[in-house]
Amino acid sequence: MKDPLRVTFLGPAASFSHQAALSSFGSESTDITLFPSISFADAFSAIQDNNADFAVIPFENSTNGSVVQTLDLLADRQGLNKNITVCGEYFLTVEHCLIVRRPSTTATSDHGSEDVFQSITKLYTHPQAWGQCERFLGRYFKGIERQDVSSTSKAAEIVSKNDDHNHHEAAIASSLAAEYHGAFVLQRHIEDRADNTTRFLILRNEASERSSGVTSLLKTTTKTTRTAKKKTLISFMIEHSAPGALADALSVFKKHSLNLTSINSRPSLVRPWQYIFFVECEHAPTPTAEDEKFTSDILKELGTICLSCRDLGTWVDGRDLVT
Amino acid sequence: MKDPLRVTFLGPAASFSHQAALSSFGSESTDITLFPSISFADAFSAIQDNNADFAVIPFENSTNGSVVQTLDLLADRQGLNKNITVCGEYFLTVEHCLIVRRPSTTATSDHGSEDVFQSITKLYTHPQAWGQCERFLGRYFKGIERQDVSSTSKAAEIVSKNDDHNHHEAAIASSLAAEYHGAFVLQRHIEDRADNTTRFLILRNEASERSSGVTSLLKTTTKTTRTAKKKTLISFMIEHSAPGALADALSVFKKHSLNLTSINSRPSLVRPWQYIFFVECEHAPTPTAEDEKFTSDILKELGTICLSCRDLGTWVDGRDLVT
Repeated sequence: MKDPLRVTFLGPAASFSHQAALSSFGSESTDITLFPSISFADAFSAIQDNNADFAVIPFENSTNGSVVQTLDLLADRQGLNKNITVCGEYFLTVEHCLIVRRPSTTATSDHGSEDVFQSITKLYTHPQAWGQCERFLGRYFKGIERQDVSSTSKAAEIVSKNDDHNHHEAAIASSLAAEYHGAFVLQRHIEDRADNTTRFLILRNEASERSSGVTSLLKTTTKTTRTAKKKTLISFMIEHSAPGALADALSVFKKHSLNLTSINSRPSLVRPWQYIFFVECEHAPTPTAEDEKFTSDILKELGTICLSCRDLGTWVDGRDLVT
Repeated sequence: MKDPLRVTFLGPAASFSHQAALSSFGSESTDITLFPSISFADAFSAIQDNNADFAVIPFENSTNGSVVQTLDLLADRQGLNKNITVCGEYFLTVEHCLIVRRPSTTATSDHGSEDVFQSITKLYTHPQAWGQCERFLGRYFKGIERQDVSSTSKAAEIVSKNDDHNHHEAAIASSLAAEYHGAFVLQRHIEDRADNTTRFLILRNEASERSSGVTSLLKTTTKTTRTAKKKTLISFMIEHSAPGALADALSVFKKHSLNLTSINSRPSLVRPWQYIFFVECEHAPTPTAEDEKFTSDILKELGTICLSCRDLGTWVDGRDLVT
């Protein structure tokens, strides 16, 4: 019998990363084990040290922008994550719910949701979630005490254990968090923007045989891998004082007919105001066998302009996938 | 008598922004009033509404990278900050101190600092400062309780009022914060990196006469304005789906012999995965009269490629200035 596939995600259990991992790889079974990493760095180490086959970590949110922790680990300034490569992505629409302790079987079922809202005296969630539900909170929970917690999952856990019947507490979290902690979803879709989406990266160790056929392992890639667009992520560092070096580096991508879809930069930490740039580009469908030749050509050219550069992976555009 | 110049900074009082404002404009006097804004948005509004002549706000740290709050307000998605322009910058080396309550005149002077370290049972600072003093904390304060507070200045204030003689508390903050709150600097330079620097932007209202001659008002620009390099900040938004549009926009800067010194992006919030880009470029010294012609040429060209673009200001490179 083959060992089950080990997939780690940025924890805690029932986090949005957990949900992205479930959607990408499927539920726990004899073929698959899912486990949380308590930090971004732990998720990266799990891959580098072959303690996991895949890691699912947030990369970018459509409202809040890039996740700097992920960029800093991909920058790999100390060479700790040398074998880590991006092999996939998953787009998760962020849905927030108002969650309370599961009512006893007879209670509350004859009250409307809005009556229950009025009995709530305290709210819990992750700091970022308040701003994503402002309209709903402004309408029903003006002036109600708010308590920041370390994750939305933690918020759901806290209210699931609330046994003070005089003080009703509610959490803002996902339906997965409610389910996981045995709590009750009082209202779905309380988020301001229906299009608030987080993009997750799927990481693997490029030296690992077990994870090399990622597309056949993902739940999402069955139909379109042959025609789907691909994305490549490349990092590079330039001499800060060289005039035009950044524009020259970027023109390499243009020369190869690549559409730059995003640019990010993080401090190099070698010297102030020197940066590591992350360029993501989109290209036409290529057979996997050609991906390597393609990126090695680009890296060769970048090498003549940049102090250093690294291929961080090529994968199928997640927006071209179907579940 | 002329009204004093009103300079606001990101508060609270004795923040690093306060220090940057003092270094840029000088101390409170009959000619100058300094006052804190309690948020980034308040500092921007003060300029837009002409309640301040200048605002000093953090833009980028050499270790932690860009300050997204500032980028988001410069993005000005709702058109609230139409007249705001960058007119200067200031580089502040971040120095952290270990700060305690001012000792009574007779006490502690015969003890070495390290003896006093051992009596400290709790530490306060802003979350970001812990990571900037890891070496010092690891050596002297392993396992000591840490309390996050909203600013380093607040941390200094808390310990300045600590009157429990059995529990000695210390703050990590600047010497300005110690001075402002009447606290005592036990040890200077406890930061890990001597080169940890924050770059502050100086903002003004482009329609204001009072702030138009910024270079003559700054303490730093007396010697080198004629030969100093200049920087320009431009923001633009492109059609996300247009292949090569980002590379085309960037090539406009190259055509005008501008060295791109940084690129940042933030979500447009119009639709997911569309971005507002911020490009900063460096150019040879130009007479101020020519700055406008120069940027208007660039904007004209960008206008043919981008959905929208905006000149966010031209100013003298802060690294070319002397105090």
